[in-house]
Amino acid sequence: MKTERVVLAKRPEGMPTADIFRYEDVAVTHPEENEIQVEALYISVDPYMRGRMSDSKSYVTPFQIDEPLVGHVVARVTESKANGFEQGDIVTGMFPWQKVVNIEAKHAIKVTQTDIPLYLYLSVLGMTGQTAYHGLLKIGQPQAGETVVVSAASGAVGSVVGQIAKLKGAYVVGIAGGPTKTQYLTETLGFDVGVDYKAEDFSELLAEAVPNGVDVYFENVGGDIADEVMQHLNQFARIPVCGTISNYNDTEIEYGPRIQPTIIKAQALMQGFIVANYADDFANASQMLAQWVQEGKIKTKTSVEEGFERLPNAFSNLFTGDNFGKQVVKVSDNV
Amino acid sequence: MKTERVVLAKRPEGMPTADIFRYEDVAVTHPEENEIQVEALYISVDPYMRGRMSDSKSYVTPFQIDEPLVGHVVARVTESKANGFEQGDIVTGMFPWQKVVNIEAKHAIKVTQTDIPLYLYLSVLGMTGQTAYHGLLKIGQPQAGETVVVSAASGAVGSVVGQIAKLKGAYVVGIAGGPTKTQYLTETLGFDVGVDYKAEDFSELLAEAVPNGVDVYFENVGGDIADEVMQHLNQFARIPVCGTISNYNDTEIEYGPRIQPTIIKAQALMQGFIVANYADDFANASQMLAQWVQEGKIKTKTSVEEGFERLPNAFSNLFTGDNFGKQVVKVSDNV
Repeated sequence: MKTERVVLAKRPEGMPTADIFRYEDVAVTHPEENEIQVEALYISVDPYMRGRMSDSKSYVTPFQIDEPLVGHVVARVTESKANGFEQGDIVTGMFPWQKVVNIEAKHAIKVTQTDIPLYLYLSVLGMTGQTAYHGLLKIGQPQAGETVVVSAASGAVGSVVGQIAKLKGAYVVGIAGGPTKTQYLTETLGFDVGVDYKAEDFSELLAEAVPNGVDVYFENVGGDIADEVMQHLNQFARIPVCGTISNYNDTEIEYGPRIQPTIIKAQALMQGFIVANYADDFANASQMLAQWVQEGKIKTKTSVEEGFERLPNAFSNLFTGDNFGKQVVKVSDNV
Repeated sequence: MKTERVVLAKRPEGMPTADIFRYEDVAVTHPEENEIQVEALYISVDPYMRGRMSDSKSYVTPFQIDEPLVGHVVARVTESKANGFEQGDIVTGMFPWQKVVNIEAKHAIKVTQTDIPLYLYLSVLGMTGQTAYHGLLKIGQPQAGETVVVSAASGAVGSVVGQIAKLKGAYVVGIAGGPTKTQYLTETLGFDVGVDYKAEDFSELLAEAVPNGVDVYFENVGGDIADEVMQHLNQFARIPVCGTISNYNDTEIEYGPRIQPTIIKAQALMQGFIVANYADDFANASQMLAQWVQEGKIKTKTSVEEGFERLPNAFSNLFTGDNFGKQVVKVSDNV
């Protein structure tokens, strides 16, 4: 049987363009012992993948040229040679960008609750939800009454960060681009203030939004936006550094005001993290997040592109600010 | 009775110059109830005082114009109206830069062991030793076999940081300016490597000095030196930010490569601190440091200027790299 996959044709320089991807046909055999064959239903595109496309030292090994991209996928089992999996089961995992593929069963996680939109397993009930949960609660540790600022606040991680912070009793300020997104923060997600970083008077708007300073800054973007937030750090501020999407596509090292003087004046803690380090606590977090979603305490927005051929476009959108909510691609009609 | 003091004549711009200080005569009465009168023996000059000379938001209140500078002093009690203190006692504390002065007894700490050089209570047995101890052990948490890098390594804080790290079994690299200081690190203090930041090939020398990367970077300087060290951070590196002496005198905000991408790639923790936050553990640390000094496991170097009139000069030397070891000023002949 033939199927289709997406490989990395070449490494991107700067913004990822369509020509870094190549579609190709590939044969699929029946699964071997302890394998399952799955059909991809939803494929997640995430900013962190940009890091793996480069050949630089990082916390994950780079993607290889002419090899398929790999990311979070929700899939349906089409054939099973593994105990515990049956045809029709829904699974998630880190799978290649391939319509039908054989996977070692140990790399698949079975989804038992299937009466909710399955793409939620790629966002709030998947990696981005876990990222928000652990980064905010383990490093940020917001206390009731404290001020939490989150950048990329309408995004997959930021939106969950802000809502969890509200559940913990914090005063929450979200930074996002444009009036539609900032209104969404306050009107739909229940943030206290939404600040538009595209506004000419962003600096003043931010200052007004944090009259009591900043106790937690959940860092998703870096760059000028971060510089502005750092001006307002309170003593013992915590800064979980989740990502710096503003410079994932930089081809040169970005310069800005040095941060050490600010860190010491505020006696602040800044800590980079990747969600994989909190794997021991994924199950707890998963249960909590699912409960909050079911109770309507955490709302989510998903931007669904349709069609396997839309993967490159969906990925590029992550860096233009054009996407709104968690970006996924629906790659099967059987869902 | 008349005595002499040093007041802040004006706030410095850039490097502190002699004209920011003014000497003036002042009357001293007998001490009131619960006060002691002390004669200053040794006065400490420390880089952090530069921060208090500016009028900017910081963790300590600024010095006031026309008011005396205040810093760490070792003094002898000349008259006591307070329980527990007698004429002749040696005390330390945060006292004004004044030859003879009345102090509330509760602000003085009595020194019981007086058969060692008393200026050690301004360095390894005082604030700088405490700073090294808590910053390294509480934030840096070096493990045996890990690589610890410390900047301003021949200085009052850095020299103690490196020696404690060696006592904990770490591989220790010190960064200092010039061959005399770097040789002192290895030959006298027992560091594994000394790297000269003034060398043209500093970048290569540093890279060679940390073949296994950097697990702890104890940050004393900031600026270009810090940028180079950050290139070598290992996963889960810790960066206690003690000070950034390279820019205490900057009149404009200093720019450098943004640090967030590095922090996230290494999943590093960077934390600013001031020693006052560890006051609960000062007694423990004091005992440990005194023991290490007595056993010869921690060696110290003190640069003693002689004469009350040398205070401005001694202070300026802190920022030129001309001083070597902890800088103190002996201000009395009665010692």
